Amino acid sequence: MLKKKDRYVVAVVGATGAVGNEMIAVLEEREFPVEKLRLFASEKSEGKTLQFEGSEIPVEVLNEDSFKGIDIALFSAGAERSKIWAPIAAKSGCVVVDNSSQWRMEPDVPLVVPEVNAHDLKWHKGIIANPNCSTIQMVVALKPIHDVAKIKRVVVTTFQAVSGTGKKAMDELLQQTADLLNFREIQKNVYPHQIAFNVLPHIDKFLENGYTKEEMKMVNETKKIMGDNSIKVTATTVRVPVFRGHSESINIETEKKIMPNEVRSILSKSPGIVVLDAPEKNVYPLPIDVAGKDPVYVGRIREDESIDNGINMWVVSDNLRKGAALNAVQIAEELIKTGNR
Amino acid sequence: MLKKKDRYVVAVVGATGAVGNEMIAVLEEREFPVEKLRLFASEKSEGKTLQFEGSEIPVEVLNEDSFKGIDIALFSAGAERSKIWAPIAAKSGCVVVDNSSQWRMEPDVPLVVPEVNAHDLKWHKGIIANPNCSTIQMVVALKPIHDVAKIKRVVVTTFQAVSGTGKKAMDELLQQTADLLNFREIQKNVYPHQIAFNVLPHIDKFLENGYTKEEMKMVNETKKIMGDNSIKVTATTVRVPVFRGHSESINIETEKKIMPNEVRSILSKSPGIVVLDAPEKNVYPLPIDVAGKDPVYVGRIREDESIDNGINMWVVSDNLRKGAALNAVQIAEELIKTGNR
Repeated sequence: MLKKKDRYVVAVVGATGAVGNEMIAVLEEREFPVEKLRLFASEKSEGKTLQFEGSEIPVEVLNEDSFKGIDIALFSAGAERSKIWAPIAAKSGCVVVDNSSQWRMEPDVPLVVPEVNAHDLKWHKGIIANPNCSTIQMVVALKPIHDVAKIKRVVVTTFQAVSGTGKKAMDELLQQTADLLNFREIQKNVYPHQIAFNVLPHIDKFLENGYTKEEMKMVNETKKIMGDNSIKVTATTVRVPVFRGHSESINIETEKKIMPNEVRSILSKSPGIVVLDAPEKNVYPLPIDVAGKDPVYVGRIREDESIDNGINMWVVSDNLRKGAALNAVQIAEELIKTGNR
Repeated sequence: MLKKKDRYVVAVVGATGAVGNEMIAVLEEREFPVEKLRLFASEKSEGKTLQFEGSEIPVEVLNEDSFKGIDIALFSAGAERSKIWAPIAAKSGCVVVDNSSQWRMEPDVPLVVPEVNAHDLKWHKGIIANPNCSTIQMVVALKPIHDVAKIKRVVVTTFQAVSGTGKKAMDELLQQTADLLNFREIQKNVYPHQIAFNVLPHIDKFLENGYTKEEMKMVNETKKIMGDNSIKVTATTVRVPVFRGHSESINIETEKKIMPNEVRSILSKSPGIVVLDAPEKNVYPLPIDVAGKDPVYVGRIREDESIDNGINMWVVSDNLRKGAALNAVQIAEELIKTGNR
């Protein structure tokens, strides 16, 4: 569906948001072959311009004809807008890479992390889903281990940055922190409780089973991306007062025994991963160190002696980069690499 | 060893620290029958006084004769001081409740959480150990479940407040936060990395096996307190930019099937526990809500469908209260309740 060209007309839908901003930056940094970049956002942003490769690009409001002539559209405008506009874009002959949760579990929509399942891009029908941020960094780290030792079960607890919620949440953390330091009363607009100097075991909506949507995304998306429904996952997702960078405490049970040294060695050679694991030198991944960086960082790799074949590890990545914008652009890169898809 | 009396001479060793301060407050609040309170700290604090029941109590420096006439000494002055002074105190006929890690795993020292194993106080020989903060709140929540369903394995990830490190760490979080908000360079004195707007998967020293001492405390102390070496625990302990209140994401595998409703019902009736579990109303335990409160709060109780008999839950408590000072005072209360021990 995507014709091989030298350069492509690319759109970013939701261009003024935290992830949209990052998509524009990543396209420029990675020198994606952009013929023309078009930026879309809601009415609120009409009249704004954003910088790309030295030019000022106007922010447009979507209409039925917007997608004509666009080859690839990177969507990060929420599930509701995606539900309406992604099919319209796909019908116009544009390939959509959608960052929302709207299409992820649809059987005819591939859910792709290029390091894990680039092959699933073959069967897309115009819409490709970008997984949830906390899932992406986890599966990048799990896949190489699964390939050698077969993962049976994962128990994961996350420490997620407020930028995962968006710009308003970053402002709220900053404002609440400043207010508390100045003995002023805090305002709560984005989260139901104070996020400054606190942790909230609550990300996205609660479901009937007591889990949040975010937790069930980690359970279900992992199986789909890894292409293995036998992998059991249970998740607790927690918001922490960190601006950028999600951290994850991951406990793995494997079919085959694998030792920490082997995990380190395998992960070190795997695409998209940097192993930072020298605790004796206080070296382990930290969210403040990953902002603006591409890799998934893995450390604190150790044997879990509470079961026969267990590994604990600590996985950190920039939720706006690999967790969103970078993964979307990498999907687009895969698409153009292989030509007519 | 402790004679039944109407009122007791009580000492707090390490009185000027975060936990020492809290011990004094808890003795007063709970109207512990104090005949006389004596306060000890290092040379740095000589000349200071601290308030107790309306009087100013001088802070003394320990010497060989300090413990004469003292019935109960609550120690919170670190492992090294405890190693030297606890045996001297015990020899003087004083019963020591020690908050450091020094004596916890000694076979002839009971390690006690009154809600769980008050019966172990019977065999003390003058020193009783107060467990690690993160372990205390976990075992309070585990015990009632263990009694009905037998716990086989626990996977725990902690979110620990800086007050667990002490007053200097609270100051460091505050100062770093203020510096970052004012675009000033930060100072790192207590932690090896910035703690403001960050999370550190590093509490206490690293051991040969890649775990931290804090993590191994949770593994080993749990077995001793619960009196069951068959309980397997694996832990990842993480420092978060929270002043007070430790949070824990706890995954439990039980021998017998137990459903979330049953867990809620059992925990609601158990001593020292408050169940806060109404996610549909955004009700779950939060560290900012527990400061200065006694209970262990449990919420987010849900079935872990990745195994046959699994439960996930979220446990929060004030690390300076139940995690330290309150538990020590409760041990002292048990001691005097039963008289000649």
